[in-house]
This record gives sequence, structure tokens and C-alpha cells, in this order.
Amino acid sequence: MPFVQIDVTKDGVTREQKAQLISGVTKLLLDVLQKDPDLTHVIIREVETDNWGLSGIQVTEKRKQSKA
Amino acid sequence: MPFVQIDVTKDGVTREQKAQLISGVTKLLLDVLQKDPDLTHVIIREVETDNWGLSGIQVTEKRKQSKA
Amino acid sequence: MPFVQIDVTKDGVTREQKAQLISGVTKLLLDVLQKDPDLTHVIIREVETDNWGLSGIQVTEKRKQSKA
Amino acid sequence: MPFVQIDVTKDGVTREQKAQLISGVTKLLLDVLQKDPDLTHVIIREVETDNWGLSGIQVTEKRKQSKA
Amino acid sequence: MPFVQIDVTKDGVTREQKAQLISGVTKLLLDVLQKDPDLTHVIIREVETDNWGLSGIQVTEKRKQSKA
Amino acid sequence: MPFVQIDVTKDGVTREQKAQLISGVTKLLLDVLQKDPDLTHVIIREVETDNWGLSGIQVTEKRKQSKA
Repeated sequence: MPFVQIDVTKDGVTREQKAQLISGVTKLLLDVLQKDPDLTHVIIREVETDNWGLSGIQVTEKRKQSKA
Repeated sequence: MPFVQIDVTKDGVTREQKAQLISGVTKLLLDVLQKDPDLTHVIIREVETDNWGLSGIQVTEKRKQSKA
Repeated sequence: MPFVQIDVTKDGVTREQKAQLISGVTKLLLDVLQKDPDLTHVIIREVETDNWGLSGIQVTEKRKQSKA
Repeated sequence: MPFVQIDVTKDGVTREQKAQLISGVTKLLLDVLQKDPDLTHVIIREVETDNWGLSGIQVTEKRKQSKA
Repeated sequence: MPFVQIDVTKDGVTREQKAQLISGVTKLLLDVLQKDPDLTHVIIREVETDNWGLSGIQVTEKRKQSKA
Repeated sequence: MPFVQIDVTKDGVTREQKAQLISGVTKLLLDVLQKDPDLTHVIIREVETDNWGLSGIQVTEKRKQSKA
């Protein structure tokens, strides 16, 4: 009965990559905890880099700095 | 003081349907737990079918298969 | 495919009350959005009153004040 | 290792305001719990007023009433 | 910068199984999205079977029925 | 109408520290977004270090290593 929420920054994650995340997490829960895939839900949330903070600043800013 | 988060697939849920979900959940919490409606918050999150996985595949794919 | 998370303060919610919340929310999603109950998951999270804040203070304190 | 999720209604929160929320929360966790800012993640979720309910009605409606 | 929340029923998940979930999810995010493991946080939330509902009833009840 | 969820590791956070987090976050939302404190809810979730992973390992392990 697992429910998995994956938050990632919105960076052009492709449909194929989302499919890989979903199948990978579902298989992991089957392998480790024997969870029935038909009861495993996975949600991927894409978050704008302006709305995600790390080290006290927006990821948008953090990336600019690391490129500078 | 309840806080309710409802995740559903993004399938053209109408404004009226959202209003029904909100009033229904709020009434339920009043009836069952005597929770003051002025303290009950409800958030509806609509999730793209590419971002929701079940049985290890995207809901988008799952629906195609069930129609095939 | 709905997923519902209900946060309430930990106040001795009984097993029967939890069952009523679960059946009520599931029925609501069936009635309003025609969601298959077999795909509707509901999680109830009970939160200690020291860990829930409203108006800037802990619910534990808030209740003391309203009784005073 | 804190992770903070801030849900607010989608009301034209500016980039600068988001930056202030992120730096403010991160500083608070450093001051109160000595949490390393490099391990503090903050996510801001903006929720449409049609998708947020309070007192059993949509915030969109609630605001109309309070202006009426 | 991913943040992953895994909700599972509280069924005696062992420490070793939790370690496997954490390493598995982190590796998946590295493989699929090239996410730096030092920025990937994973939280496992164990939920009492009385607090998890599926098909409108508590998982506790659902399991009794499937054994009957 | 903000709703704030703070996940931290379960490390003996005191009642007073929780009160400071709650008042601090509520004040921040008032200062930055003019949010009414009576509508600001804050939930603190304390997560066992075995249930929190970073860099692919449990925080429990990570701390042992950094002390070694």
C-alpha cells in the first residue's frame, strides 16, 4: 500500500524519465518490502527553481553562483 | 484544526466539483470529529497523468492500455 | 486514483471515527468525481498538540488560554 | 536536515518575497535548532484559490463574500 | 535536489529494509536524473493500519477479510 | 491561509524550541506576505533518524561516520 511523493526541480524532466522513476520506485518496493505494484502509487511533483530554497537562497540563484 | 490534502489526477475537475469536495470533507470532519469548519483547511492538488504512476507505469499509459 | 491525507490533532480519535472518516471521504470521491474506491487511499496523520501551531502558538497553549 | 513545505494561495507572490521566505525559514532553523543551512530545503507551493477551501467554501468565494 | 517521501503501512519494516529503500531511491535519482546523492533526502513514514484506508475501509479490516 | 509543514529529525526538540519555530514562521508569513496569523497553521513532524536518508544512507549511519 505504499504511496511515494517525489519532489524535484522543474528542469525539463522528460516523459521517459518520469516513466523510469515510476517503474524503478515500484520495483524497489516490490523487491525490498514485497509490496504489490497494483497498490503502489507514485507522484512526481516538479517545483520551479524560484520556489525551492537550499542554503537559504533560491535554487535559481544558487545555480547562477556556481556557474559564475 | 484539520488540514486535508486531496491529490487527484488532472482530468478537468470543474470548479463546482472542487466546491463539493471542499464542503463535503469539511462537513465530514464536523460530523465525525466535531471540528470547527473555520479551522478546517482543504487543498486539492491536480496531478498530470504523466506524473502519477500506478502498477509501475504512468496513468497516461495505463488508460491507453485499458482502452485497447 | 485519489490520495487523501488528513492531518488532525492527536486527541483520542477512536478507531470507529477513523473508519467513518475513511468511508466518508472515499464515498465523497465516488459521488463527486466517480473515483473507483479500490483506487482511493486515505491516510490519517495524528499530530501532537505541541507540534501544531495556530495564531503563532502551540495548540496546547491555545486550548489552555481558551479555557482560562 | 530539515525539510520545509510552505503552502500559500497563488496571489502573485513575487520572486523577492519567495527569497525572503526561504532565507527567513532557513535562518530560523539555524537559530532555534542549529540546523546547517546547507541541509535545509524549503519548498513553496502556490495553490489556486479555487483549490483551497476554508470554512467549507473555496477561498475564491470567501474573498468575494468578505468584500460584499 | 530531490525530496522523496515514502508512506508505507507500519508492518515491522526493519532497519535494513529502510536502508535498502533509501539507497535504492537515491541511486535511481542519480541514474535517471543525475541528481547528486548529497542533495537527495528520503523520508520513510510508517502509518498504522488503522490510519490507512483503501476501498473505503481500514487496512486492518481489509486484511482480516482477505484472510477470512 | 498558509500551511507550513516542517520535517526535522527526532533529536529531542524541546517544547520551547517548537514554540519558537511556530512563532517564528508565523511572524515571517505576516511580515513577508501580510498573512493573518489566525489563518497560519504550522505542523512539525519529527522523523526517526533511521527513517531519514541523505547521500543514500540513514542519518543514523551518517552521524556515526562523521564521528568516527
